[in-house]
Amino acid sequence: GVSFDPKEHQHLRYNPLRDTWVLVSAHRMKRPWAGQLEKPPEEHIPRHDPRNPLCPGNTRANGEVNPDYESTFLFENDFPALQPDAPDPGSDQNPLFQSKAARGVCKVMCFHPWSDVTLPLMKKQEVVKVIDKWAELVGELGTTHPWVQIFENKGAMMGCSNPHPHCQVWASNFLPNEPALSDRCQRAYHQKHGEPMLLQYAKQEAEKKERVVVETSDWLAVVPYWATWPYQTLLLPRRHVLRINDLTTEEREGLADIMKRLLTKYDNMFEISFPYSMGWHGAPTGPHLTEDNSHWQLHAHYYPPLLRSATVKKFMVGYEMLAQEQRDLTPEQAAEKLRNLPEEHYKTRQD
Amino acid sequence: GVSFDPKEHQHLRYNPLRDTWVLVSAHRMKRPWAGQLEKPPEEHIPRHDPRNPLCPGNTRANGEVNPDYESTFLFENDFPALQPDAPDPGSDQNPLFQSKAARGVCKVMCFHPWSDVTLPLMKKQEVVKVIDKWAELVGELGTTHPWVQIFENKGAMMGCSNPHPHCQVWASNFLPNEPALSDRCQRAYHQKHGEPMLLQYAKQEAEKKERVVVETSDWLAVVPYWATWPYQTLLLPRRHVLRINDLTTEEREGLADIMKRLLTKYDNMFEISFPYSMGWHGAPTGPHLTEDNSHWQLHAHYYPPLLRSATVKKFMVGYEMLAQEQRDLTPEQAAEKLRNLPEEHYKTRQD
Ligand SMILES: O=P(O)(O)O[C@H]1O[C@H](CO)[C@@H](O)[C@H](O)[C@H]1O
Ligand SMILES: O=P(O)(O)O[C@H]1O[C@H](CO)[C@@H](O)[C@H](O)[C@H]1O
Repeated sequence: GVSFDPKEHQHLRYNPLRDTWVLVSAHRMKRPWAGQLEKPPEEHIPRHDPRNPLCPGNTRANGEVNPDYESTFLFENDFPALQPDAPDPGSDQNPLFQSKAARGVCKVMCFHPWSDVTLPLMKKQEVVKVIDKWAELVGELGTTHPWVQIFENKGAMMGCSNPHPHCQVWASNFLPNEPALSDRCQRAYHQKHGEPMLLQYAKQEAEKKERVVVETSDWLAVVPYWATWPYQTLLLPRRHVLRINDLTTEEREGLADIMKRLLTKYDNMFEISFPYSMGWHGAPTGPHLTEDNSHWQLHAHYYPPLLRSATVKKFMVGYEMLAQEQRDLTPEQAAEKLRNLPEEHYKTRQD
Repeated sequence: GVSFDPKEHQHLRYNPLRDTWVLVSAHRMKRPWAGQLEKPPEEHIPRHDPRNPLCPGNTRANGEVNPDYESTFLFENDFPALQPDAPDPGSDQNPLFQSKAARGVCKVMCFHPWSDVTLPLMKKQEVVKVIDKWAELVGELGTTHPWVQIFENKGAMMGCSNPHPHCQVWASNFLPNEPALSDRCQRAYHQKHGEPMLLQYAKQEAEKKERVVVETSDWLAVVPYWATWPYQTLLLPRRHVLRINDLTTEEREGLADIMKRLLTKYDNMFEISFPYSMGWHGAPTGPHLTEDNSHWQLHAHYYPPLLRSATVKKFMVGYEMLAQEQRDLTPEQAAEKLRNLPEEHYKTRQD
């Protein structure tokens, strides 16, 4: 028979972090696209917009005035999905109508006073400030909350409603679905193999090389073997680190460096500000701080939606929603493409 | 303290079909929306477009000419994600790099010869023909394939690249993630409670009424207690039915009727052709045909993305992708809104 070629022959790959499978059908890239085109991201954003509630000195929805901040700036989300004081829905014994109390806080964090920069265009020391603030927040909110989710929705295509560079931090009194699943999978792996899953994974990817996008002495960015989004990446420290606030000063510098390099490659792919959702997963906090969490390894997920160009995204719809995620190029093809892109940003490059 | 009001106080609800939770934060509907606007669906589609490969008499990508079909029309997807003959990737003992063979077939099924109709605008007997064809396909492809996924991506917003009314049928040699999870959950419920989960659920929702959208003597459409998409619905037979090909002639007539009524309400919501992804889940097939699947109950999921208007969808991004799904109105509010919409389609209504 014909010998197996992952670029030509569809197959399933296993995601050990979620205990799910992805269908890889790389030959599908050959089909023509006659569907929806996205609006490419806005490329000309004013440095300061007097009507933008995230800019320094401006007034927000609740009437508060932002300070003339010069680095990061943190405030409470004006329309929080989680509030600290919601009453308990009360318990119903019916297994089909189960509800639970949800309490927490939602914060917004601006990365920089200027609206016309993004992380890859910021100075390395400015990115370190962002990382320091992330670490501080996980430390503070994590004293009482079991989970602190740091995430960035970048670009209108990813539901972001404000072009100013910012992320969100939602801390909750519960462990959400995704980290709960990841916790179970990492724990089972650790029990069976005696080492944290993602520590072993990083070592093996660093040797195999074919899915590596960028690496430094402390960090590794790979398109995971089980990636679902076309150019999805996984960012991992090489040392065993449970939470972002456990990173050393040197590791934070290294993280700023690899983030800038990875995100520059993303932007260079289609020469636009590359949209994505990203977020950090580390060991649970609050009551879990005193438990053994050695099965955990800190990591960030980047989920960018674009597939073919600045205007054609991958639709995770019908089959993906109802049956299983499917991808149209192999993770190795995606990694190679990203690896070969320049590390100088198209906006600052001299032609 | 303040007493609990689901419209004002965020809380978690349990999805017993997926063993996950959803965060319900209905007060978030109050926030203004300054983010991306979608292009509203195209309202003027020609009945016959000589360049559309799905219309009768036209030539498709592979050179084949469509017959002058008068009812449904079935053909092989010209760019299938699943093919019958892909070689096996071979086994790797490494738990972090697991792959498996994926084989199957992908078919496309046109609902009607005209491009300017959709299911709610078709005659009831024409919809029955679609249902009969679905049943026939599950019977045929299900003799050998463990899973036959029938799904419809409707509207460009849901990645549909052709306005002609059609669905897809992907049959695979594996049980995909979503039905595998649903199978586990329904089995565990059945073992514990002695009756199929969704049979009990339908009975209870029919009594409670607050989440019912449309009902007939044989069928029930509800916004499930655990809905994640704003106007998500679950369509259920009242009798215990394992698979779509087990439906009686009368039940198929009833299904055509309730589908037309539900989809008319959807279209009437914003007076546009309402985008969604939908699909059928029934007991697994192929080798599972000889197993006891009495824990299963046939059902269809409808996942429509719109939230506020014809141009503002719910973005399932950052927090949703990395932590947990979150919704901005209660399922009861969504059901009430749908229930109160007229059952005569806005396109055929006389003013
Ligand atoms: O097969 P189509 O309609 O071209 O493609 C659409 O549906 C598929 C199945 O849900 C998805 O994988 C694609 O991303 C989507 O664009
Ligand atoms: O909070 P934002 O940026 O207004 O809203 C965005 O991110 C949230 C968290 O991922 C989502 O729930 C919203 O659907 C999305 O539009």
